[in-house]
Amino acid sequence: MIDRLIATLAARGETLAVAESLTGGLLAATIVSVPGVSKVFRGGLVTYATDLKHTLAGVDADLLAEHGPVHPEVARQMAAGARERCGATWGLSTTGVAGPGAQDGVPEGVVFVAIDGPQRKVEHLTLSGGRQTIRQAAVDAVLALLESSIVT
Amino acid sequence: MIDRLIATLAARGETLAVAESLTGGLLAATIVSVPGVSKVFRGGLVTYATDLKHTLAGVDADLLAEHGPVHPEVARQMAAGARERCGATWGLSTTGVAGPGAQDGVPEGVVFVAIDGPQRKVEHLTLSGGRQTIRQAAVDAVLALLESSIVT
Repeated sequence: MIDRLIATLAARGETLAVAESLTGGLLAATIVSVPGVSKVFRGGLVTYATDLKHTLAGVDADLLAEHGPVHPEVARQMAAGARERCGATWGLSTTGVAGPGAQDGVPEGVVFVAIDGPQRKVEHLTLSGGRQTIRQAAVDAVLALLESSIVT
Repeated sequence: MIDRLIATLAARGETLAVAESLTGGLLAATIVSVPGVSKVFRGGLVTYATDLKHTLAGVDADLLAEHGPVHPEVARQMAAGARERCGATWGLSTTGVAGPGAQDGVPEGVVFVAIDGPQRKVEHLTLSGGRQTIRQAAVDAVLALLESSIVT
């Protein structure tokens, strides 16, 4: 699926950037696994610590202070920040709790993914299966969200 | 190895940040695979496009223009930029050519990895085995460089 998505973006002359929290680089690494992806992939921000979501990706500090990092508006602003700071057509983001266990009262498996660009979407996921499965499922979900938005 | 390294850093109260080019998030994803890593891992920059090495990681633009992105001083400045912009004890970086094929005259498999922090080191690697093997070997090398520097 990732090869097809990159080929579609290349044909459209569009580029990608990411801002990742729970996936911690796995989304970028999945994209970069495709040979010749440099025409499409610009780069990204791994905003694992909450304060880096503000300083690196430009997420509103008051929003983070009030709602914490696992929130649909945080996901939306991360995707927008990735797109703007990396100069890409599309920004993709992930934020949530990979576990093991809850984090600041948010249960394991609660994840928000978002895309920003010509279309803007946020998706709320409830995932299970443990840390690595949840991270991989978040990557797959945000790539599917983008693909469903550009193949119309 | 990564679990032991993270446990060592946690015991020392030290933190990590990354700036990745050819590994494209794989270094961060390897670190984030460890449960409870949020005490140690701050985040990072995926500076896949050359211009993002300057804008996101603070690598000198003249250096990039003169020598291109695959250069030991670029690796050193990427590691320093990761450490500074993410507020970590240690910055780790990777830059090189994963292939397939040469890039701007630099052969596939030429890689520089660096660490910045209480100790500063740059290592020149000559790798083979194809794109995914080269990316994984670069991740392993920079983690080994850090581990050898803190276990004294």
